[in-house]
Amino acid sequence: MPVNLQLDEHGKLRHLLTLDGLDRSILKSILDTAETFIDVGHREIKKVPLLRGRTVVNLFFEASTRTRTTFELAAKRLSADVINLSPEKMSTSKGETVLDTVRNLEAMHTDMFVVRHHLSGTAHLIASHVPAHVRIINAGDGRHAHPTQALLDMFTIRQHKGNFQQLKVAIVGDILHSRVARSQILALNILGCPEVRVAGPRTLLPTHIERMGVRVFTDMVEALNDVDVVIMLRLQYERMQGQLIPSAQEYFSLYGLTPGKLTAARSDAIVMHPGPINRGLEIDSAVADGKQSVILAQVTNGIAVRMAIMAQLMGASTATGTAQ
Amino acid sequence: MPVNLQLDEHGKLRHLLTLDGLDRSILKSILDTAETFIDVGHREIKKVPLLRGRTVVNLFFEASTRTRTTFELAAKRLSADVINLSPEKMSTSKGETVLDTVRNLEAMHTDMFVVRHHLSGTAHLIASHVPAHVRIINAGDGRHAHPTQALLDMFTIRQHKGNFQQLKVAIVGDILHSRVARSQILALNILGCPEVRVAGPRTLLPTHIERMGVRVFTDMVEALNDVDVVIMLRLQYERMQGQLIPSAQEYFSLYGLTPGKLTAARSDAIVMHPGPINRGLEIDSAVADGKQSVILAQVTNGIAVRMAIMAQLMGASTATGTAQ
Amino acid sequence: MPVNLQLDEHGKLRHLLTLDGLDRSILKSILDTAETFIDVGHREIKKVPLLRGRTVVNLFFEASTRTRTTFELAAKRLSADVINLSPEKMSTSKGETVLDTVRNLEAMHTDMFVVRHHLSGTAHLIASHVPAHVRIINAGDGRHAHPTQALLDMFTIRQHKGNFQQLKVAIVGDILHSRVARSQILALNILGCPEVRVAGPRTLLPTHIERMGVRVFTDMVEALNDVDVVIMLRLQYERMQGQLIPSAQEYFSLYGLTPGKLTAARSDAIVMHPGPINRGLEIDSAVADGKQSVILAQVTNGIAVRMAIMAQLMGASTATGTAQ
Repeated sequence: MPVNLQLDEHGKLRHLLTLDGLDRSILKSILDTAETFIDVGHREIKKVPLLRGRTVVNLFFEASTRTRTTFELAAKRLSADVINLSPEKMSTSKGETVLDTVRNLEAMHTDMFVVRHHLSGTAHLIASHVPAHVRIINAGDGRHAHPTQALLDMFTIRQHKGNFQQLKVAIVGDILHSRVARSQILALNILGCPEVRVAGPRTLLPTHIERMGVRVFTDMVEALNDVDVVIMLRLQYERMQGQLIPSAQEYFSLYGLTPGKLTAARSDAIVMHPGPINRGLEIDSAVADGKQSVILAQVTNGIAVRMAIMAQLMGASTATGTAQ
Repeated sequence: MPVNLQLDEHGKLRHLLTLDGLDRSILKSILDTAETFIDVGHREIKKVPLLRGRTVVNLFFEASTRTRTTFELAAKRLSADVINLSPEKMSTSKGETVLDTVRNLEAMHTDMFVVRHHLSGTAHLIASHVPAHVRIINAGDGRHAHPTQALLDMFTIRQHKGNFQQLKVAIVGDILHSRVARSQILALNILGCPEVRVAGPRTLLPTHIERMGVRVFTDMVEALNDVDVVIMLRLQYERMQGQLIPSAQEYFSLYGLTPGKLTAARSDAIVMHPGPINRGLEIDSAVADGKQSVILAQVTNGIAVRMAIMAQLMGASTATGTAQ
Repeated sequence: MPVNLQLDEHGKLRHLLTLDGLDRSILKSILDTAETFIDVGHREIKKVPLLRGRTVVNLFFEASTRTRTTFELAAKRLSADVINLSPEKMSTSKGETVLDTVRNLEAMHTDMFVVRHHLSGTAHLIASHVPAHVRIINAGDGRHAHPTQALLDMFTIRQHKGNFQQLKVAIVGDILHSRVARSQILALNILGCPEVRVAGPRTLLPTHIERMGVRVFTDMVEALNDVDVVIMLRLQYERMQGQLIPSAQEYFSLYGLTPGKLTAARSDAIVMHPGPINRGLEIDSAVADGKQSVILAQVTNGIAVRMAIMAQLMGASTATGTAQ
């Protein structure tokens, strides 16, 4: 059993901070639990009482209404009370440290923190300081990790492809700044995907990325050749410090996913994107809205996967309230 | 049965986008349903379980805490879960289209969108793209329509005057920019009000407004003569592009509702205003707070009417959960 | 029975606006009720149904996410519906008065307002205009009062010291701008604390503060001599208009609570702070995080005390729903 902040003494998940160091059984357990929550979204009363009377705090130091909403919905469908806190309103602007903020919220007997922060490691920092009964979910920290996104992506791949054992997957775009790509690569490796490729302009490929067990391409069509899954990344203008791409037009012509480039992939390949999409920048509308796109399925699955993660983390400490 | 985006194949209301094209029976049905919800506001436990487990999204691209709050309260009193999303926080600021935003929220299995947008037609645009089970309520789009406001106004008139068959109603102020006035005129016509008057300075009267079936006045006292209902509009400084009124003082002296001008109306006339009121601009405090004012009754009725609309729209698709 | 806006005709608490004029039995009753709520925070399902179907409005004209969150949590744990409204989003920015805003919310059948405003007296103003069934809690008004903070502080003192009859308490820092200090002094006097001291630089001590029944010190170590309780105040940079302190360094050296200065107090003295703390400005981290600190206990107690206040105020009007 690895020494890992996010595992308890029995090897069960206490926090979800990163996929690094988690074994396949834990990931499969989350995906299997999520299957049981898919049905909840189709009911008239889309609510289960698993987290009734628990308080989930969405602690978003970096704003993201979309991601926050998915966690808010997931928590409410588990019947939890949800408190949304956002950076510009926090006492941290009055000079309070992140840890003081968390300690205060903890003292109010909150049960779970969903943390997003622009600095890598913030969720780990918080997890290493909370008492044993408090749970932390990393909802994105700097360029480091975004494990819930990667898990919902794995759920979506499994839903469409059955398993990972024969798959070729290409991840295309701004790998350098993408915590999503890092978490996806880890997840695919853990789940046994034999070939993960990354593609992008040299300026947006991290040095030594091949050490993560991926094949590296700068030619997108080569990267897509014969793959089962194409994962497009959002071009994060806002995180680009400098002139990393020549122009939007040139980027689209080289790395935008068009129907033409997509023909390089297998005819039954699925197209994924973590959203929100930049139409005409990294993806053509004909592909985004086309029959190979599973982008909206990712969104739907995101609720079920986040419900599963929340329920598992709480169950790990209480031995009740699991949905398995 | 008119071909109408907001009606299903049986002529039942699926969305509430505009009153245009709705017949009297539909409006009466909403007002009658609202009667049954008036009582809920007087209970100690102001909650009914009709929308339990449903998710209502307040999608306010144009900020309005007041209106948003009425929908939030109405939805919560129906036991729905409510997600509040506002423009400045939305991914639309990252270049995502309105429809992408809605498709994403839909994919999270949300049930109803309450939409406010500064562009006319946005609620229609959304309604024409959502799947069959999703419901849209227009909470104000540009200068076009604000049907829930008009319906709560009709409820308030009926509450005080019994019916519409003998009524004279005057709407005074900035007719040009008012989606409220347009929806009120439609509602009064549909419900059989024989005489609807509009009054305001020429610069704030739309060309050809008389084609909507109203009598047009520029002299306010003439317009108020012998009316049963005076509806004052909010002067929308923020929407006036140019010098449409000479000065606040002159506007008040000509079109502000004072106790003196009000004597032109019937002695039992009621005074209405959609709020928030500009005291001393379009209405004198002595009138706003006077015994003929039903402005706060409008607010109270607004919750019941919005509960009724939400319940009816959901019931239309499920054949359960109606409060009729 | 004192003539007091916040008491009903039977001397029961209707609103909580200030501690001024309240007698010891009322304060003790709140503290005793709060004891019964402490347990709720330790349960797996941290919810009681006392305010189910009631609507609590957090009306924060002055932003404070921390304080607002404590009221939101308290209300939700009582099963109330909570509406959060904040100043920058309110119609008051459109020229509507505070009273119009409140009257509108009242008309929506809301039950309780938790009001914070930068002007002293706002909560009183509102309380003097609401109908009999509506309850107001002052969550801080200007420099005037912050009664819920003082009550949670009293709860925390009683929890650690048993009673007030033999205690020496020192309040240190910016007394001049502190509504917290004013409410604490009143509470300590009402509860029978024989010696209340205040300490700070002359520029931050109100003229005639000794008339509130306190001993005044400018030397902090003298003030701490032999006390049982040290209450540090937050240095409110944002409210200081002018050069009231020479520098942060000098302030800390004279009035910052360090382990050294704390030795002047009794060895079992507790250290309190309303938060958020300015580490290294008014308090040293070694003290804030030390074994005499009860700062996080204050936060925990704050939820129970606010639940008790909300339940009592609602119970006072309905004779049901009390937790006593």
